[in-house]
Amino acid sequence: MKGLFISIEGADGSGKSTQIELLRNYLEKNNYKSVLTREPGGTIISEAIRNIILDKKYMEMSDMTEALLYAASRAQHVEEYIKPLLEKGNIVICDRFVDSSVVYQGYARGLGISCIENINKYATKGLEPDITILLDINAEEGIKRKKNQRELDRLELQKLEFHKKVSEGYRELSNMYPNRIKRIDASKSVEDISNEIISTVKQLINDKYK
Amino acid sequence: MKGLFISIEGADGSGKSTQIELLRNYLEKNNYKSVLTREPGGTIISEAIRNIILDKKYMEMSDMTEALLYAASRAQHVEEYIKPLLEKGNIVICDRFVDSSVVYQGYARGLGISCIENINKYATKGLEPDITILLDINAEEGIKRKKNQRELDRLELQKLEFHKKVSEGYRELSNMYPNRIKRIDASKSVEDISNEIISTVKQLINDKYK
Repeated sequence: MKGLFISIEGADGSGKSTQIELLRNYLEKNNYKSVLTREPGGTIISEAIRNIILDKKYMEMSDMTEALLYAASRAQHVEEYIKPLLEKGNIVICDRFVDSSVVYQGYARGLGISCIENINKYATKGLEPDITILLDINAEEGIKRKKNQRELDRLELQKLEFHKKVSEGYRELSNMYPNRIKRIDASKSVEDISNEIISTVKQLINDKYK
Repeated sequence: MKGLFISIEGADGSGKSTQIELLRNYLEKNNYKSVLTREPGGTIISEAIRNIILDKKYMEMSDMTEALLYAASRAQHVEEYIKPLLEKGNIVICDRFVDSSVVYQGYARGLGISCIENINKYATKGLEPDITILLDINAEEGIKRKKNQRELDRLELQKLEFHKKVSEGYRELSNMYPNRIKRIDASKSVEDISNEIISTVKQLINDKYK
């Protein structure tokens, strides 16, 4: 592949959107061709699949059916959109990728890390990000940020348990793949985080093209 | 599982429908509770997924996306329909199951036997038929039967190559799983085949319940 594939991961409230924007600004100023995508990625087939996943009519959908549908949607996104962009030499930034499925469905909802990893290895035909930026946020902190720093109510405290699992799952994955996953402490300042991401991406570009 | 799970496999023209009917007549006469199903199996979620697979709008669908969608549809069919029936003690006869995906997508279309097997092991959570009846038909013979025994035209001869692969694939699978897959020569008479199937199923019922 001539291009570079970067995925950005992190629980809700970890600041992904802000950091993606800052990274894109940096790439643009330095004249790199970059494309931002997120699943379902705008392919009509992936979107049709995603509509089934989200449709309230289908409340009896089993967790495994859902996991396979996410993988099917991703297979099409990779084949029809991401791979051709990489082949043309673009830097593709993907807001969430396989790791999100592994953490949310495999770890937090209990289908198993290896189950979701294996299904997705087929879906992506082995395509992995050159690097994954993980914005590591403490679960309570993440939810508070979303709620503008006020104290959490009862329902939010229930959700907290799930969010804790998500944060744990991300940490476990980053320990499994220390070379691919760059874990960044998301409690730092926006500027510090952005500098860390940019220097990581710079290094990657140098290693790849020089 | 209290019930028995029987799948019937074979290329087009192998006589599956006839043999399924004869097997069901036998089971009914002997007061066994049996249910016939075929994918997508009447669950609304499986059907919604199947509609995406078959929709002419989606010509750019990749083979892998299709394979994952078939697996997702099957996951729901198993979870919502087949497993509950087996738990209640029914004999469930399924007209095509995982082996069809393995042979058509894995073998004949080239995604690989182990790829389709592995994805479907997750989809079915390991549920396998107690026995699989494979009606083994010579490819040319199968197509001729469908065409009422007339000679094949040019397009049918092209399809023949694909059908040969399907027959080969089924034979390879039956060599891999000789205990599960009962291969029956489908060029025999309808009555001979039916007797062979019924004696196989009788034996299975005896082994399971006596």
